[in-house]
Amino acid sequence: MNVVDSIDVEARRRAASILRDVMLRVLDDVIKGRPPKLVIPKRTLSNTIFDPERGILVLGDDVFERNMLDMGETRRFMQTLLMASIVYQALVENEYPTIRDLYYRGKHTISYRDLKGVLREENTWDEQAESDAAIRDIEVATGLLREHMLILSKEKGKVVGNMRIRSGPDVIDLSKLGHGAYAIESTPDLIEFLDVDAEFVLVVEKDAVFQQLHRIGFWRQYKSILVTGAGQPDRATRRFVRRLNEELGLPVYVLTDSDPYGWNIYSVFKVGSITLSYESERLATPKAKFLGVSMTDIFGDTNKKPYLTESERKNFIIKAKERDVKRARELMNYTWFQTPRWKKEINMFLEKKVKLEIEALAGKGLKFLAFQYIPEKIQVRDWID
Amino acid sequence: MNVVDSIDVEARRRAASILRDVMLRVLDDVIKGRPPKLVIPKRTLSNTIFDPERGILVLGDDVFERNMLDMGETRRFMQTLLMASIVYQALVENEYPTIRDLYYRGKHTISYRDLKGVLREENTWDEQAESDAAIRDIEVATGLLREHMLILSKEKGKVVGNMRIRSGPDVIDLSKLGHGAYAIESTPDLIEFLDVDAEFVLVVEKDAVFQQLHRIGFWRQYKSILVTGAGQPDRATRRFVRRLNEELGLPVYVLTDSDPYGWNIYSVFKVGSITLSYESERLATPKAKFLGVSMTDIFGDTNKKPYLTESERKNFIIKAKERDVKRARELMNYTWFQTPRWKKEINMFLEKKVKLEIEALAGKGLKFLAFQYIPEKIQVRDWID
Repeated sequence: MNVVDSIDVEARRRAASILRDVMLRVLDDVIKGRPPKLVIPKRTLSNTIFDPERGILVLGDDVFERNMLDMGETRRFMQTLLMASIVYQALVENEYPTIRDLYYRGKHTISYRDLKGVLREENTWDEQAESDAAIRDIEVATGLLREHMLILSKEKGKVVGNMRIRSGPDVIDLSKLGHGAYAIESTPDLIEFLDVDAEFVLVVEKDAVFQQLHRIGFWRQYKSILVTGAGQPDRATRRFVRRLNEELGLPVYVLTDSDPYGWNIYSVFKVGSITLSYESERLATPKAKFLGVSMTDIFGDTNKKPYLTESERKNFIIKAKERDVKRARELMNYTWFQTPRWKKEINMFLEKKVKLEIEALAGKGLKFLAFQYIPEKIQVRDWID
Repeated sequence: MNVVDSIDVEARRRAASILRDVMLRVLDDVIKGRPPKLVIPKRTLSNTIFDPERGILVLGDDVFERNMLDMGETRRFMQTLLMASIVYQALVENEYPTIRDLYYRGKHTISYRDLKGVLREENTWDEQAESDAAIRDIEVATGLLREHMLILSKEKGKVVGNMRIRSGPDVIDLSKLGHGAYAIESTPDLIEFLDVDAEFVLVVEKDAVFQQLHRIGFWRQYKSILVTGAGQPDRATRRFVRRLNEELGLPVYVLTDSDPYGWNIYSVFKVGSITLSYESERLATPKAKFLGVSMTDIFGDTNKKPYLTESERKNFIIKAKERDVKRARELMNYTWFQTPRWKKEINMFLEKKVKLEIEALAGKGLKFLAFQYIPEKIQVRDWID
């Protein structure tokens, strides 16, 4: 009835097989009379460590066992098994669930009699937080990301540029999209990179700036691939950028507002997010570089002329809010922000207590942003690593 | 240097010419010794009326004159003129400004001596609210939407389906986008519709549900065009949908959550938004129909079996919040919600005080949603107009 996509069929087969193996091990425990358990790496802050060699956040070695016969764990154990069976069923039935509808798929009330024979009712889960946690348990227990299990989600990443890709049965030319762009799919691992004629990847924080650079022909002028995550990037955008870097060897430059919020977006692309560090191994791009806007772009430095004049500074810069200052102080504690160049950037921010939006540079003229500021910064290697 | 797009060149020429004519009339006042003024339709709630014949919100006949010599209006008058000159300059210089960078482009401090000879300083504008208001003044004074003036903005609308379009120099086949989608451009009036082999347009509130329906091949199975505005739709998505309806004669069905927030999204597509009613003439799709999820889909009705079983209802429905009830009562006051069918829908909601997400239907199985619920509702014309 529906069009079966051979790429998806192969992905389903692989995920279903891995998921089945993990679940068979649990069954094996039951058969052999051992208490059924799942061994799962701990997803706690204390077990989240920065691996300086690989330059990404990873989960440490702490594991815990979800043991069915441990009363405190029984509910979570059963939730994880329930979710695994729903995901498995969706895989073999060619479904494309979302995390929200997985919550609905599994939500029901179980009636049972307690030890005293009293009829009781309990919900499999009440909140999506519980079903989401079960999905994360399965991700870390199997090493499969939810994307590998064909679980879809809301995506807002876009790309244009000098390359062609294969997605599903189609070949898409990312240089022939008119004024629009390609909305990146939920399962970026299934994308095949075909002809690439680009020298770098520019990741832009803001969708509107992405559109400006696209429309003025930036990626055509400087053979490149232009990506936006439209604010905090989703998983698919991060994975897509990582693959461009890792598989094609393209340098990745990140352009954000000059403020702690922008630095954080760069940080999520580069080392991963702290709350979901188990994803970083596949989603982070440790070689990504912060192209700007930097404090020295605004104020200049020894041997560096600022990009803004005195009067532009006066008109364009915005006073930092208390929460910006607080956020900057937090970022200073992260290992990957403790390089000399980042220390200088953050200290300069804390001293001046001002920030600047990319749009202020576009306000100087889009041509300035597209054909002077960005290419010049790349050419003289004026980025922060 | 940059690639000049002939479609954009033509659009620029047209907008610049209209903008110049309006400004020349102001200049003419000065030359002829008349007080310079701009006649602008009032964008107030009391001048926002529902035109039952056309089925959209429009501005009434009330106008006001921004008179330069009226001290209370001088600042706004000058801001409007300043903005007009910045937009004009951007048009002739092949720039693609955003509303945010137009704010920066015009932001500066004017020094002057007052009548007593004291040196004073005043900013052209302090907040983006002021520069945005100037853009809206220009839109209503010239009849040009900001999109016609090549002013770009953040966009989140996506489309896939059985049609090809021309955008800029490229032809894009919306049926050959793999698992991804086409991100709709900021200037949808510049899109040319080429080969269309579709019988209807389905607008889905949520991006994740859009992706599910896309991935399972909904639009291929039922020759159609699938659009999402990813929540509250932006202007470009609304204009794109309107054009599909008006120019191609395709029926438009809107699928949202079953709650006042979903109804409001439908309402914005159908009649326009109340705060920006002057856009409705171009952005609203008065013939759009609310396909669901409706209260009778959940609970059934005389002669209609509900789509949910008793136990599904128990698991899937969500208790309405106080603000949902409040919003529903507000919507009841709008003319276009005062049809018998809508009254019944809203009353049923107020009586039951529950809501339902589309994902709950996908939770019953994506195939149920894609290959039973939606096509059946369309076939038996079970929508609300």
